[in-house]
Amino acid sequence: MNTIRTVQVGIIGASGYSGEELVRLLLNHPHAQLAAITSRQYAGQTLGQIFPKFANHPRAKDLRFTRPESELLARQVQVVFLALPHGVAAEFARPLLELGCQVIDLSADFRLKSAEVYKEFYTHDHPAQELLAKSVYGLPEANRGAIKDATLIASPGLLRAGLIKPSGIIADSLSGVSGAGRKAELDYLFVECNESVRPYGVPKHRHLAETEQELSLAAKSPVVLQFTPHLIPINRGILTTLYLAPATHFTNAAELFALTGKVTACYEAAYGNEPFVRLLEGKAFPDTKNVAGTNVVEIAWRLDGRTGRLIVMSALDNLVKGASGQAVQSMNILRGFPETAGLV
Amino acid sequence: MNTIRTVQVGIIGASGYSGEELVRLLLNHPHAQLAAITSRQYAGQTLGQIFPKFANHPRAKDLRFTRPESELLARQVQVVFLALPHGVAAEFARPLLELGCQVIDLSADFRLKSAEVYKEFYTHDHPAQELLAKSVYGLPEANRGAIKDATLIASPGLLRAGLIKPSGIIADSLSGVSGAGRKAELDYLFVECNESVRPYGVPKHRHLAETEQELSLAAKSPVVLQFTPHLIPINRGILTTLYLAPATHFTNAAELFALTGKVTACYEAAYGNEPFVRLLEGKAFPDTKNVAGTNVVEIAWRLDGRTGRLIVMSALDNLVKGASGQAVQSMNILRGFPETAGLV
Amino acid sequence: MNTIRTVQVGIIGASGYSGEELVRLLLNHPHAQLAAITSRQYAGQTLGQIFPKFANHPRAKDLRFTRPESELLARQVQVVFLALPHGVAAEFARPLLELGCQVIDLSADFRLKSAEVYKEFYTHDHPAQELLAKSVYGLPEANRGAIKDATLIASPGLLRAGLIKPSGIIADSLSGVSGAGRKAELDYLFVECNESVRPYGVPKHRHLAETEQELSLAAKSPVVLQFTPHLIPINRGILTTLYLAPATHFTNAAELFALTGKVTACYEAAYGNEPFVRLLEGKAFPDTKNVAGTNVVEIAWRLDGRTGRLIVMSALDNLVKGASGQAVQSMNILRGFPETAGLV
Amino acid sequence: MNTIRTVQVGIIGASGYSGEELVRLLLNHPHAQLAAITSRQYAGQTLGQIFPKFANHPRAKDLRFTRPESELLARQVQVVFLALPHGVAAEFARPLLELGCQVIDLSADFRLKSAEVYKEFYTHDHPAQELLAKSVYGLPEANRGAIKDATLIASPGLLRAGLIKPSGIIADSLSGVSGAGRKAELDYLFVECNESVRPYGVPKHRHLAETEQELSLAAKSPVVLQFTPHLIPINRGILTTLYLAPATHFTNAAELFALTGKVTACYEAAYGNEPFVRLLEGKAFPDTKNVAGTNVVEIAWRLDGRTGRLIVMSALDNLVKGASGQAVQSMNILRGFPETAGLV
Repeated sequence: MNTIRTVQVGIIGASGYSGEELVRLLLNHPHAQLAAITSRQYAGQTLGQIFPKFANHPRAKDLRFTRPESELLARQVQVVFLALPHGVAAEFARPLLELGCQVIDLSADFRLKSAEVYKEFYTHDHPAQELLAKSVYGLPEANRGAIKDATLIASPGLLRAGLIKPSGIIADSLSGVSGAGRKAELDYLFVECNESVRPYGVPKHRHLAETEQELSLAAKSPVVLQFTPHLIPINRGILTTLYLAPATHFTNAAELFALTGKVTACYEAAYGNEPFVRLLEGKAFPDTKNVAGTNVVEIAWRLDGRTGRLIVMSALDNLVKGASGQAVQSMNILRGFPETAGLV
Repeated sequence: MNTIRTVQVGIIGASGYSGEELVRLLLNHPHAQLAAITSRQYAGQTLGQIFPKFANHPRAKDLRFTRPESELLARQVQVVFLALPHGVAAEFARPLLELGCQVIDLSADFRLKSAEVYKEFYTHDHPAQELLAKSVYGLPEANRGAIKDATLIASPGLLRAGLIKPSGIIADSLSGVSGAGRKAELDYLFVECNESVRPYGVPKHRHLAETEQELSLAAKSPVVLQFTPHLIPINRGILTTLYLAPATHFTNAAELFALTGKVTACYEAAYGNEPFVRLLEGKAFPDTKNVAGTNVVEIAWRLDGRTGRLIVMSALDNLVKGASGQAVQSMNILRGFPETAGLV
Repeated sequence: MNTIRTVQVGIIGASGYSGEELVRLLLNHPHAQLAAITSRQYAGQTLGQIFPKFANHPRAKDLRFTRPESELLARQVQVVFLALPHGVAAEFARPLLELGCQVIDLSADFRLKSAEVYKEFYTHDHPAQELLAKSVYGLPEANRGAIKDATLIASPGLLRAGLIKPSGIIADSLSGVSGAGRKAELDYLFVECNESVRPYGVPKHRHLAETEQELSLAAKSPVVLQFTPHLIPINRGILTTLYLAPATHFTNAAELFALTGKVTACYEAAYGNEPFVRLLEGKAFPDTKNVAGTNVVEIAWRLDGRTGRLIVMSALDNLVKGASGQAVQSMNILRGFPETAGLV
Repeated sequence: MNTIRTVQVGIIGASGYSGEELVRLLLNHPHAQLAAITSRQYAGQTLGQIFPKFANHPRAKDLRFTRPESELLARQVQVVFLALPHGVAAEFARPLLELGCQVIDLSADFRLKSAEVYKEFYTHDHPAQELLAKSVYGLPEANRGAIKDATLIASPGLLRAGLIKPSGIIADSLSGVSGAGRKAELDYLFVECNESVRPYGVPKHRHLAETEQELSLAAKSPVVLQFTPHLIPINRGILTTLYLAPATHFTNAAELFALTGKVTACYEAAYGNEPFVRLLEGKAFPDTKNVAGTNVVEIAWRLDGRTGRLIVMSALDNLVKGASGQAVQSMNILRGFPETAGLV
């Protein structure tokens, strides 16, 4: 019987919402030992002082935030998670990679393959262009943002199978406030978000670029996506509604029934055995409360006989499946652990 | 100088959320005297016992819920508001009309002109078909439901002006929980709605029929609408995102700029002087918290240079602009009062 | 018939939550004209740009935030409201008073009569000690903070009537997040407040000093108050539970009944005719949703036959009755307007 | 090395909020196999149909709700959890006990030792009086309700140590809406609870009787408790503030400091090694968000030099520590499992 060797892991930027969630997952991971957490703001304080909910955890007793220093980290851990804002992550990745660490980035910094596209969407040069080309982590499921996730999980299979047209895809997303990060801004105060719902970043949101890149690969032709995010008053969760055009028209109930069967078969082939995808049957619709705190994405679909459109709806927890859970899943694959370790 | 004569009004079904809001508006209306409120459930109790917030109101002192009896009502009031669930309203309308009352219906019962379409969407015969044909109230702004409002306020002008194509319109809506009514169902418990967001009624929601009817009139050709409602954890408000296809393509920034100008001009012509429409300029987006408790609808629009689509976003309070406020506005027009009386 | 002359009013600090609420009330006040609003942060921008909900208001068209300059203000208005953080208000009051303005302060700066007590609770010298002694505004209902309100409205009458003991009073308060002000701090982010409830400022909260000062006056002996505030996830509202010891013991149901009658009579004598106090009868309890957006305070009371204690419960809107509404009520009295003008 | 034998367990009433939480804990318990779940309402449906979040769980695949039949259950399981409303639980306990099952009751039905006290508080005869006397389960930590928990965890040690007076104890509680159960009632609709806070059951709440019983045992003299619950808009959590009178007066800072040390020592002696009690040090206050989803209770205390009172504040998750987690902890002790099994 093979025994699994525990890996030492660290988190840079452990005091944000994704970092906090990553701490939770890694403290309970059967094959990982959380050995280092960094935070410029809280350096010197214990984990329990900043997040009391971890204060009693048997594996959190001696954890204390430190300043992020690559050499120190490289001596302590083999895997480093970057839970940092966009643009900052890239700076940390290079020295850690050079020192031999494996790096798993939760930000968007390494999701794009083209430095030109990066500059178009982020309005500044990519800080580590040579790493982009290396396709650093090479994990199919890794490094996806929450919004991208919902769309990418729900549609590439349909594109590849030729069931939907690559043009005219619309993704309408409803995001919880933790997606904005743990930063003190007026817009995210309780009073500003409670009893409020509003669109933002319309029409050109930054995550579009990476999503279009992946969808285009699946479709083998350029895909331009319409994406409209909205901020809603929940802590966690993203619900996405996709509006898709079936590649073949249906003109009566029998054809609609047949096409529904093909879509269902496509989803079952793609995800029927995936531990973290729940395909909803019958009359059920996705609901963020059913996936909160888990690495699961719920998906449901309906063909509309009146408009001819395929509506795909999905729900996931932006902090888990959309960030930390996804990152842990990547580590599991990277290190040869069971893919679900620490995630169920 | 003409003096305005106060009208005596009554509400059938005054104990639901729309009824409660209608009570609030009518108690403060300068030209209406709320003389009768009915509720089978609370008959015999005072208004203040059921809604303590009205207990001190100087004009609410003697108001007591009664059973809904047409003859009694017709002796007391000239205008009756029906704040009842769908299917029930029609039964009450006929006797009241015969007794000479003016009836303003907040439900969907009289919104459709065709009894066949009614049966298709509601799965039972219309209870007062002969009144459908009479086009009873004849007020252009009257009797619109909240969801329909958002769509109808935002797009018919564009259709009439030929700025957008009549096909392929998508309306994606986010609704507060009061839209489900004041009824004891598990789905609408606090615990089920808080930290939850979910679609419902996809793909064929009942309000579609009436909305398509009105849009088709504006477009002078049949319009089939894609409509996806979602339930979000706010008390009041509906935020709708419309995805529209401009009638003319634009291929460069100059054409996009020109088309944006036409859309803006179209909205300003239609609503620039409307007291209850706020056209958002600059970078602002609609937000339900900016319209809660008011009869105002906020509208913003963006042309997307990447996809070629026109995105229109709107926010309104489903209980006011989407129900009670709209009804009071109708009464104001019907009785010759200033259109904004009791609404600002 | 006397006609009421409209007064020109200004607000210093109009961009906070109390300021925003004051704008709402004054824009709709029948005898006040809002002529000036100041905000260092937003100087130069229109009211509608910062608060879109006022953009269409017929009386808000030309309002633009300016820097707070006393001389300019004194030329424009006769009454100035200070909606500023504690410690800042005092600096503005002196020059405005010297220039002949009437000043109504929503902060705590002038609530204490003793500069020593101010220093004990605020840990710095009072910035305008000579104004403390002048008892500047002299209005019994003016300048009370929200928390103080609930306690002061509910208990001085009982103290004066000798119905309760002055010792051992406990006030346990539950406050909405707007009470923390419109400032960007991590503690008040949506994610930190939603699904959270926590005490704060225990055991020595700043508002204690002023409340004890007023209670001691009523009791004619020093009152020391136990006060425990809690932050709960609502926008508006404070619910306070007071634990009081009746001055006379009751040992049977008849005595309990008699004492209940006395308490009720005391409340009815004190508030039976007050337009903004709702004494709850029967089984009703106060609820913040019944007072939100209004200047009303709800009060209920129960004698506990088992413990011998009198429990008094009250609810009010911290932004209205606890701040802006109270301030407008003060202005009404100060200027000889009907006390309820602009508040119902 | 001793191996632990897995126990087969069942839940009667698995479709309420406590039942749902118990399902979650038992599906992940290392030594328990959830073999039966009952629900009259959902009999015949799978667990995943009613609670989609469990649909993918590897140990939930074949779970289907059945009607609660004692003989069938007794053949399937050794331990039965009763997650039923008060008054109903007792009927199920007797036959199951006679059939040899171990029964763990989450309701209040067996918490009282006196049938007379039961009748006084519940207004009907106890349905299984002979079981009351048997002190059926005999587990010190078992069968405590959420509110009782907070008070009982926080104060008996102080009473036993003679640090506080047994008279005059006040418990002021803030409860999340899940405490009201998963039942369709107007009072618990989202719209009625959101933006609302209200007291309820004042002054004589049912849980008082059992709490007083246990406190009296600790104090060795009758304790009469003042208890004021409030409903606040969160899903999970109870925050309780206790007002206590120290047995010895302190008259200066040194005595206050000394007494604080004794209270701290008392808490550390009682709970320093408890896995589910977090004693907060420094400036921290309990917060329900820090215990949500866990079996932990947070406790903080402050002596007030001004009033002489000891303020104890605690937070727990009513569905876990206050119900299901507590019940699992009881099972762990009853079956000789590690006390924390399935709970961390």
